Amino acid sequence: MTEQKQLRLGAFMRPVSLHTGAWRYPGAYPDANFNFKHIKSFAQKLEAAKFDAFFMADHLAVLNMPVEALKRSHTVTSFEPFTLLSALAAVTEKIGLVATASTTFDQPYHIARRFASLDHISEGRAGWNIVTTSNPDAALNFGLDEHVEHDERYHRAREFYDVVTGLWDSFADDAFIRDVESGIFFDPEKMHVLAHKGESLSVRGPLNIARTPQGWPVIVQAGQSEPGRQLAAETAEVVFAAPRDLEGAKSLYADIKGRMQAIGRNRDHLKILPAAFVIVGDTVEDARAKRAKLDSLVHYDSALASLSISLGHDASGFDPDGPLPEIPETNASKSSREQVIRLAEKENLTVRQLAQRLGGYGGLAFVGTPQTIADEMEQWLFEEGSDGFNVVFPFLPQGLDDVTDRLVPELQRRGLFRRDYEGTTLRDHLGLPRPENRFFAQVAQAAQ
Amino acid sequence: MTEQKQLRLGAFMRPVSLHTGAWRYPGAYPDANFNFKHIKSFAQKLEAAKFDAFFMADHLAVLNMPVEALKRSHTVTSFEPFTLLSALAAVTEKIGLVATASTTFDQPYHIARRFASLDHISEGRAGWNIVTTSNPDAALNFGLDEHVEHDERYHRAREFYDVVTGLWDSFADDAFIRDVESGIFFDPEKMHVLAHKGESLSVRGPLNIARTPQGWPVIVQAGQSEPGRQLAAETAEVVFAAPRDLEGAKSLYADIKGRMQAIGRNRDHLKILPAAFVIVGDTVEDARAKRAKLDSLVHYDSALASLSISLGHDASGFDPDGPLPEIPETNASKSSREQVIRLAEKENLTVRQLAQRLGGYGGLAFVGTPQTIADEMEQWLFEEGSDGFNVVFPFLPQGLDDVTDRLVPELQRRGLFRRDYEGTTLRDHLGLPRPENRFFAQVAQAAQ
Repeated sequence: MTEQKQLRLGAFMRPVSLHTGAWRYPGAYPDANFNFKHIKSFAQKLEAAKFDAFFMADHLAVLNMPVEALKRSHTVTSFEPFTLLSALAAVTEKIGLVATASTTFDQPYHIARRFASLDHISEGRAGWNIVTTSNPDAALNFGLDEHVEHDERYHRAREFYDVVTGLWDSFADDAFIRDVESGIFFDPEKMHVLAHKGESLSVRGPLNIARTPQGWPVIVQAGQSEPGRQLAAETAEVVFAAPRDLEGAKSLYADIKGRMQAIGRNRDHLKILPAAFVIVGDTVEDARAKRAKLDSLVHYDSALASLSISLGHDASGFDPDGPLPEIPETNASKSSREQVIRLAEKENLTVRQLAQRLGGYGGLAFVGTPQTIADEMEQWLFEEGSDGFNVVFPFLPQGLDDVTDRLVPELQRRGLFRRDYEGTTLRDHLGLPRPENRFFAQVAQAAQ
Repeated sequence: MTEQKQLRLGAFMRPVSLHTGAWRYPGAYPDANFNFKHIKSFAQKLEAAKFDAFFMADHLAVLNMPVEALKRSHTVTSFEPFTLLSALAAVTEKIGLVATASTTFDQPYHIARRFASLDHISEGRAGWNIVTTSNPDAALNFGLDEHVEHDERYHRAREFYDVVTGLWDSFADDAFIRDVESGIFFDPEKMHVLAHKGESLSVRGPLNIARTPQGWPVIVQAGQSEPGRQLAAETAEVVFAAPRDLEGAKSLYADIKGRMQAIGRNRDHLKILPAAFVIVGDTVEDARAKRAKLDSLVHYDSALASLSISLGHDASGFDPDGPLPEIPETNASKSSREQVIRLAEKENLTVRQLAQRLGGYGGLAFVGTPQTIADEMEQWLFEEGSDGFNVVFPFLPQGLDDVTDRLVPELQRRGLFRRDYEGTTLRDHLGLPRPENRFFAQVAQAAQ
């Protein structure tokens, strides 16, 4: 008898929600971007529901958008991830804490140090979502007039990863003797000076932090683009790319796991957890009604911009309450345009509803009852569409409560999700091995 | 009747202590560098004693020292300040949280964001200890082969401060309307784009964080050197420079407050809180015995290096158990050498004891009973040697308990220190005004 496959569940968080209309939903916390008490309550509920991780999305700029959209957006400001997740580390005990940090606009010594420190503070619960930051507005906040090109960013990201992980291995696990009698605090033979000099980076080391409980914090990536998939296959331990449907997901899953095998990595050492927007209702109709209500809170001015971008065609002249008209071929990505047209047909959406859907949250979504959503998640798991999900909550706190109080028990009943944490670290939750120190032979860990 | 002057007390912390022998002291926590539970207990004790702030010292490198000293040092590794203080913010309610961050090796957008985020998380308790990082080992960890020169560092620091404080003023205090009915989240007229282009830095802004509870986190500096004093007079709100004695302190105090008046700043808007090593005993003899015991735990190999540097003369040939011999004139700072010679004479120290004193903690110290130390602190306060102190604990936790359980009650009995917090923010504790937003007229604050 083989052990049943288990879903891994992360929470992909913005304080108010990733959905742009969420702050207006009845019962929402519009001030959550800077109200730590709210975020703390979310993290503690997720921990009570045995989620693997709390995952904080991030931007390095107030995003550039037309002022009519900007003034309606709750997503332009929020807590900074290192400070927020460190604060959450002190008020939680088991849940993993994944922070987004950019390789393009920060220094590897700082990044290595902050994640290592968070891993110590949280006793082994830190994860690093490596991003290369494609937003050109961010470059202007870091002294660069032009955005750094895609290839250059990925090249630097790979080197940055090597440096950070090398710094995490600055000390052997047993370097710190702390022998009061002899006065020897640590064994200098067990300290490694990295002395990295590469194309983009020059970093001497060693890191001034002992090796952490997890050895290395867990490495997380989006992994959607071609270089992103390769980087993920080589280095990532969690991937959260969000294909639109199960077919796309299976193809991405097979591709990334295949790339891993091609370079000799164990395919179980990376978990593919797509971002999935989840709305739970008493009935499927009820869930859809919640979504329609939520989408209706996206202002049409903001929504139109999203629709026009997806179509590659100015949609401002369309009748908002009519069906999507025929549009000519454009320069926009053909697949993006066709997807939008299919969505409008399938759900019989007006131009306004279509625009609000895209302007709200346009990605992969599970909308239904605890049973129908569990059916879908089960299918994704068993058909190798994913190893679990990073759940995006439509609105908070109710949308989160619906997941932890209704969906999670259904998943537990089916044996698809844990009833209690099996271990104490994020690696334990995800079933990931503790990395060997590349400079020192591993020491037997009493607690491992 | 005038209100009695009050001491302000910060705790100048390293997890094990700044004293290099402290980890070997009976009852110490040698593992505190990476044991959050210990640090949390220290912060909570300091808060119970109504300390103004918990102040985390920092380094950006494993300090370069001879291996015989290095392997005995507990100060080469520890938590990173942003992560540590954010975690402490979640488990304390009133005490201020001051983190050290370098203007030479970080980006103003990151620094502005992390401190603003910490100020929101802590509801107004953040402070920024601005350092320019003189340690050449740090440069090698940030891609620089040569250390950045002193003048260049200070020039950049001044510009960096302007950018960070400008970013903190990106939004008016009342910019975030969050009007659910109209769907307007914030007023774009109340957002300021900094668009800074200076000699060292180019930063567009705005910061993606709302203006914080304190307006700006409190600005802290060492302020000892000539450019450091001027920078402090222009920008600092707390200075922790540690003169050796009251005469030196009065001169520094008068100098910095005079510089403030010369540029039109209110002299009460900067608190001078020298770092002071405090050892409390049942009698003065008992306190001195504790210090002698602590100093004796500094290994002679480590201690000798400190003595040789202070003398500008290789001390390794001296008889450790004899008195300090006559030494010829050297290249070392004359005042440093003379101070060391005076110290040896005054306390009748052997070469070993002298070396261990300098290798342990060589700065300003108050060693005595609660009464004698309170007498000294009172004198410093009333004679304008300082506005209070940043207390350095000789060993932890006992050295801290001695201060909170014995010295603080004596100060309270004399009316020199608060029995409870008067307000909720670090600015409240220190009696500092909330800065006006330089781009928007201040809004009346209900809570101010």
